[in-house]
Amino acid sequence: MPGAPVKKVLALSGGVGGAKLALGLDRVLPEGALTVVANTADDFEHLGLYIAPDLDTVMYTLAGINDQERGWGLAGESWQCLDALGKLGAEQWFQLGDRDLATHIHRTAKLRAGASLSDATGQLCSALGVKARLLPMSDDPVRTLVRCGEGELPFQHYFVREQCRPEVRGFRFEGQAEASPQADFMALLADPALALIVICPSNPFVSVDPILGLPGVREALHSCPAPLYAVSPIVGDRALKGPAAKMMAELGLPVSAASVAAHYRGLVSTFVLDESDATLAGSIEEPAMRLITAPTVMKTLADREQLARVLLADAGVATA
Amino acid sequence: MPGAPVKKVLALSGGVGGAKLALGLDRVLPEGALTVVANTADDFEHLGLYIAPDLDTVMYTLAGINDQERGWGLAGESWQCLDALGKLGAEQWFQLGDRDLATHIHRTAKLRAGASLSDATGQLCSALGVKARLLPMSDDPVRTLVRCGEGELPFQHYFVREQCRPEVRGFRFEGQAEASPQADFMALLADPALALIVICPSNPFVSVDPILGLPGVREALHSCPAPLYAVSPIVGDRALKGPAAKMMAELGLPVSAASVAAHYRGLVSTFVLDESDATLAGSIEEPAMRLITAPTVMKTLADREQLARVLLADAGVATA
Repeated sequence: MPGAPVKKVLALSGGVGGAKLALGLDRVLPEGALTVVANTADDFEHLGLYIAPDLDTVMYTLAGINDQERGWGLAGESWQCLDALGKLGAEQWFQLGDRDLATHIHRTAKLRAGASLSDATGQLCSALGVKARLLPMSDDPVRTLVRCGEGELPFQHYFVREQCRPEVRGFRFEGQAEASPQADFMALLADPALALIVICPSNPFVSVDPILGLPGVREALHSCPAPLYAVSPIVGDRALKGPAAKMMAELGLPVSAASVAAHYRGLVSTFVLDESDATLAGSIEEPAMRLITAPTVMKTLADREQLARVLLADAGVATA
Repeated sequence: MPGAPVKKVLALSGGVGGAKLALGLDRVLPEGALTVVANTADDFEHLGLYIAPDLDTVMYTLAGINDQERGWGLAGESWQCLDALGKLGAEQWFQLGDRDLATHIHRTAKLRAGASLSDATGQLCSALGVKARLLPMSDDPVRTLVRCGEGELPFQHYFVREQCRPEVRGFRFEGQAEASPQADFMALLADPALALIVICPSNPFVSVDPILGLPGVREALHSCPAPLYAVSPIVGDRALKGPAAKMMAELGLPVSAASVAAHYRGLVSTFVLDESDATLAGSIEEPAMRLITAPTVMKTLADREQLARVLLADAGVATA
């Protein structure tokens, strides 16, 4: 007798923070259950290479080859090419490791040969032994522009070159209105086997909004019977990683998980606060949102698995 | 009182063998005297990168950063990216070092941004401190195809992937008839200050013929009053480097410097034999060609300078 069909889980992710929860989910779910959709609005072309920072962070993390101390890129990386590029007078502000370069070179060659970003991602993941299905949010180009005093900065210029120093006034996602969400992503939202959607603890403004704002995605999330959870990337008055807290303050929002909850109002059914923010629950007035607390600070691999298990148990999804 | 204007010297070169003599000339000539025109018919696109093996060999050699033991590429090279490319399933037959990759990435980005190969080469040479002027033979694509039993092989497939194993029946230089020789190269052939042209000890079939066959080059060499020397790449019955001897045998030619002399008949005014081939001089029947002998086997830096000095002295060109 065939067993019950595997319940499916969808995680929406940016880079480092999202990748941690994606890894936890991947490790505790049965094979074939997890799909991760990654933000591609951070992607850019640099020195002629197509670079997809969030896709790569998730891919390297799921493949177990990411550098855990540095927090990005590959473990055991070397920097010979970057050093030589500097001697040739090339731009050096974006750190390109020798082994990471192989990903960019291989993917760029595939894209130039006509492959979609989804195809190229699938091939890379397969070569690296990634078990989960990893999808770009779209095969069409969407590019985050950060509005600041000096005008608009492409995201990687703001994030890496300027190290998030400029004061943020807003964001624009160039190409978003014309982009199609990735087809398998949309098909999954209509799949009766989908049992849970999790917005990972990623930056709501520059990692999650690019995905949510793709044409048809909000509508599909609304129509989808699976519960939509969001894990706060803000704990106390700090972002676990990256510029989310700084952005909030500059946008005039209180820096707290309450602002994240408000950001996802009307969309998210269950909002996940860190245990240390339990006292905040009483002050969050989101009547349509169920609030739960969980240990969301993921320092170890066990932390990642634990958070995944808490969410899955709460949503009634069986682990492996 | 201004001194006499610097006499100019032009070297036509392929890769390793030609680069050795180019370096010797560069070291003994006054600054501003030497121009090297390198074959670009070996160039190819690999993994989306524009690779110019002969230009790079000459450039790295003139910059003093080439690997002397391996005979190609950069000294102190590492291979992390190539290893990672292999793990991703990319083609690995062409050896791409991490530092060498910087050259390919930087140049490819310049070319895609609209720079000519000459511009890109000039910028790379300037960044690497190359003193001589290094020019590609053309800014237009010319590609050597090696005719063999199985049909035609692109040059790098024959040379690197197949390691010169297929039996050669002939060559075709795709794009040559439509290509323009590099403008500064042609201008130099018309410059009254040009005092010597040297065909370096490079492969006559696949390194020199692509240059000589460009539209207008033979005519310009004929009209040019500067003497045209050619140094034999064949010593005894062997090529100093590469497949020239094997090609000669497969084309039904005697493997000796005499075949090289015959190849350059009607063009070269002074043919340079290795001292060990002095006895051959009597048997070379090239009435229009003056034969001289010189120590052409360049193992050390001193050997490279010595051959350069012998040629320059013979042609009456002052050294620095």
